[in-house]
Amino acid sequence: MTAARASEFELIARHFAPLAGGRRIDAHGLKDDAASMAARPGFDIVMTADAVVRGIHFLPTDPPDLVARKALRVNLSDLAAKGARPLCYLLCLALPKEIDEEWIAGFAQGLAADQLEFGIELAGGDTTSTPGDLMIAITALGEVPAGRMLRRGAGRIGDEVWVSGTIGDGALGLIAAQGDLGAAAAADIAALTDRYRLPRPRTGLGPCLVEFDVAAMDVSDGLVQDLGHMCRLAGCGAEIEASRIPLSAAAAAQVAREPALMARAVSGGDDYEILVAVAPAASTAMADAARRCGTPMTRIGRLVAGEGVMVRAADGGPLDVGRGGWMHF
Amino acid sequence: MTAARASEFELIARHFAPLAGGRRIDAHGLKDDAASMAARPGFDIVMTADAVVRGIHFLPTDPPDLVARKALRVNLSDLAAKGARPLCYLLCLALPKEIDEEWIAGFAQGLAADQLEFGIELAGGDTTSTPGDLMIAITALGEVPAGRMLRRGAGRIGDEVWVSGTIGDGALGLIAAQGDLGAAAAADIAALTDRYRLPRPRTGLGPCLVEFDVAAMDVSDGLVQDLGHMCRLAGCGAEIEASRIPLSAAAAAQVAREPALMARAVSGGDDYEILVAVAPAASTAMADAARRCGTPMTRIGRLVAGEGVMVRAADGGPLDVGRGGWMHF
Repeated sequence: MTAARASEFELIARHFAPLAGGRRIDAHGLKDDAASMAARPGFDIVMTADAVVRGIHFLPTDPPDLVARKALRVNLSDLAAKGARPLCYLLCLALPKEIDEEWIAGFAQGLAADQLEFGIELAGGDTTSTPGDLMIAITALGEVPAGRMLRRGAGRIGDEVWVSGTIGDGALGLIAAQGDLGAAAAADIAALTDRYRLPRPRTGLGPCLVEFDVAAMDVSDGLVQDLGHMCRLAGCGAEIEASRIPLSAAAAAQVAREPALMARAVSGGDDYEILVAVAPAASTAMADAARRCGTPMTRIGRLVAGEGVMVRAADGGPLDVGRGGWMHF
Repeated sequence: MTAARASEFELIARHFAPLAGGRRIDAHGLKDDAASMAARPGFDIVMTADAVVRGIHFLPTDPPDLVARKALRVNLSDLAAKGARPLCYLLCLALPKEIDEEWIAGFAQGLAADQLEFGIELAGGDTTSTPGDLMIAITALGEVPAGRMLRRGAGRIGDEVWVSGTIGDGALGLIAAQGDLGAAAAADIAALTDRYRLPRPRTGLGPCLVEFDVAAMDVSDGLVQDLGHMCRLAGCGAEIEASRIPLSAAAAAQVAREPALMARAVSGGDDYEILVAVAPAASTAMADAARRCGTPMTRIGRLVAGEGVMVRAADGGPLDVGRGGWMHF
């Protein structure tokens, strides 16, 4: 079913211009070649970009507003993990012929909802047709106090490893969305599926962390794999305890029922939590600050000499987590 | 022929990390979630994004270094037209399976060449596989003195219309590249094809224009169509004279041989010149400044009451330019 689609100019005017600028950003109703933003003295601009492709990162049947929000939120999660407050984003859309205007309207509604929720503005972008599949490429900009961007590679041996929120909901939510959590309670399936479909970037937490001397990154490819990246940059290893890894009630119920799912929880992707390495002397103050910012954090282990990430099971031995993370490529 | 392709991490480390940051941008060797850039007091950040798709914006047979440079330069042209000095860019790449590492290496070499030429740095991006066609989405950032970004919509009735460089090389170059300029001299075919394949964004000129109270935009969809956009935003029309439109020697030879090509020259795309509307009292100073910046500008007409763009032929009557511009969508 292919509905007639308006011209690029009409689509932009109808669906995207209402999202453009208005506060910090001067986006000229998307009628100009570019947008502008005043520099704020004492702050650095933080930049990140992530692209999603239909059939790789989302399903053709996913509702367009959720597709939009997920594409945006994976970028907001990167900004949050760097301690940055999000400011704006630019959107490149490649649309195959069968995408009709109703889909585009739903997509824009998803963006509008998230702009309100996260206090961001559309600053520009590009819309093109494609003979290939639907692709959404987003660049997001944020700001941090000058010189305070949190880095992945700042960890040191002896640091405690902390993580925000809960781990594994995204991975178990994917299994649920595929219909493979059959014995689970309906409420758990719904909660996990929702968490998989719609990431909750920790934009409230990130800016609270910049006062502390921590290493930080977002957990998107799986806790074990992402902690492995942090370790490689710091030239060390890590040991974490499976029993300390924070699980939601819904995830904990699945692991209690089927203990093998714990490995999926710690190696699957789509958590969008913030992983932190912090010196023991600073960790209590950091956790207190995180709580005041509305996000609980949990200590799950520490950075150690050596290399690799060891997840210690309740019996003290290593938990086999397989390949250790999800790679899209 | 499909060569084995390395993992995303290896590809980034090998081909893109060497392009990342190092001067103004702290890009952490592309090993972090984001890059940072110090705000420069007294300057605004200018942002633009453009995406290109194989089969729509370039041909599968185009060499990868030229594909990269064109994708980057269309963004630099937007920055230049806003008066911005280019700073950095973020790159999202969606790669179909048959793209091998040799192609990616050539693509990265094209970016490296242009980084040197334009003094810019890679600040981040994303690489993903796609079941669809090759897509390159680039966001470019630049800066202008605070409040001085040039706008499309700032024109007024009575303003003179000026354009940089020469018009029509891109459009005639496309015809040449398709082998349809058969009777042309080989040197002309080569010159026009090259101009079509590799835009020359006016990054030297743009920052010289911010001292003047002008409307400006880049000419990418065809002179007549783009001037039409400028007129609609200003609530007026324009009259330009065909005999004043600056043509390169190669383009002029084609128009002399086949006068109907003049309509293609003024309505075809891919010029990447800067179109300006400026009050008559300021135009001489502006043209002098442009010349000092190394780019000639030519007065081609003026903004008038009414609507639409009229191209006046040598006999005083209107030149029929057909649809008036090229739309990708």
